[in-house]
Amino acid sequence: MTEPVPAEGEASPADPHLAPEPAPTGAEGIAQLAAAARRVVDTVVHADPPADAALLAAKLHAIADEIAGSGRISPPRWDNPEHNRDHNPVTGAANPLAPPLTVSADGTGGVVGTATLGFPYQGPPGHVHGGISALLLDHVLGIANAAAGHRAMTAWLRVSYHRPLPLLTECTVRGKRVSSEGRKIRATGTISTGHGTHVSAEGLFVAVRPDLA
Amino acid sequence: MTEPVPAEGEASPADPHLAPEPAPTGAEGIAQLAAAARRVVDTVVHADPPADAALLAAKLHAIADEIAGSGRISPPRWDNPEHNRDHNPVTGAANPLAPPLTVSADGTGGVVGTATLGFPYQGPPGHVHGGISALLLDHVLGIANAAAGHRAMTAWLRVSYHRPLPLLTECTVRGKRVSSEGRKIRATGTISTGHGTHVSAEGLFVAVRPDLA
Repeated sequence: MTEPVPAEGEASPADPHLAPEPAPTGAEGIAQLAAAARRVVDTVVHADPPADAALLAAKLHAIADEIAGSGRISPPRWDNPEHNRDHNPVTGAANPLAPPLTVSADGTGGVVGTATLGFPYQGPPGHVHGGISALLLDHVLGIANAAAGHRAMTAWLRVSYHRPLPLLTECTVRGKRVSSEGRKIRATGTISTGHGTHVSAEGLFVAVRPDLA
Repeated sequence: MTEPVPAEGEASPADPHLAPEPAPTGAEGIAQLAAAARRVVDTVVHADPPADAALLAAKLHAIADEIAGSGRISPPRWDNPEHNRDHNPVTGAANPLAPPLTVSADGTGGVVGTATLGFPYQGPPGHVHGGISALLLDHVLGIANAAAGHRAMTAWLRVSYHRPLPLLTECTVRGKRVSSEGRKIRATGTISTGHGTHVSAEGLFVAVRPDLA
């Protein structure tokens, strides 16, 4: 159940996940706004309880009102691959929840992304939450399937934790489709740092029926 | 690799995951601030590219500066179960990335939480990202182990997707320890709505060695 990926036959150097078009000014504006919101998230997670928390919260609500007042996205736009590329919670530059992970083709038929995760993503002290690693891998395996020409949904994902993944350390997330048989697609991936592989995943994906893609 | 949970013997009605003490004013302030930041995140994800995005981003950066200037948490505080309860990316009221899921004992030895996930958590149009479901389940299985008296790390987690989980719909996340043998613990869980079970998970967890707990 990863985010929608291009329909079969659309995957190519023009795959929106792999080679985004130069962003229009509007998208750049949203990315700038999301980056600022991401910094707010990080400072809130790091904050000693400020004496004036209520005042600061009121200021954030006022800005939220301003942003909301500037126009809301119409629902049909959500059902759009370019929109989801920009807004998903893993690689979405327009989504403050996304680290964001930046993903590209790895030159061997798979995909590779990098991110450095801070304290908002913490599980064990000083380390990335295991569920966040699962989130990154589910997404990257979906992109790998898209790059291989399959628009697919996750049927199951198995994530193995080999050693804790440190925060504030650049990590590399790799994904690759390993086989396909009818509508069933298998993909694997890893999260690694200079210290080796920390997390690995394998998954079974089911291609969206062509008449629904 | 879930967030740290209380050491064996500490799990009880006083388990900080299950029965939080009344929050001190400072924690309430941070929770208020995090709630406001969560609303900023939601409005950014919904925003039509505003003409004054750069100005709005500058305002957010100014507030981030104010929050950061009010005092940063000292590193030792991160290695603290109460701190992690408040700041983790799933149930943490102080973490704007967390929905937050609210979890309590289910009366049969397991734990149950509810959340309603909005567009920042979207994968397929109108539905929750599969990796977000994995994140919620990894966390809730860890809490279930804690409630059963085990401080443990995830060795592997297998998540099965039965049907897409709709956004903006209250979902129920359940977790339960099913067995333990030496340091190996097995736990299972589900995410359901009024339409049945959407996602299920099983995992193997390894208890933290008592001398390290």
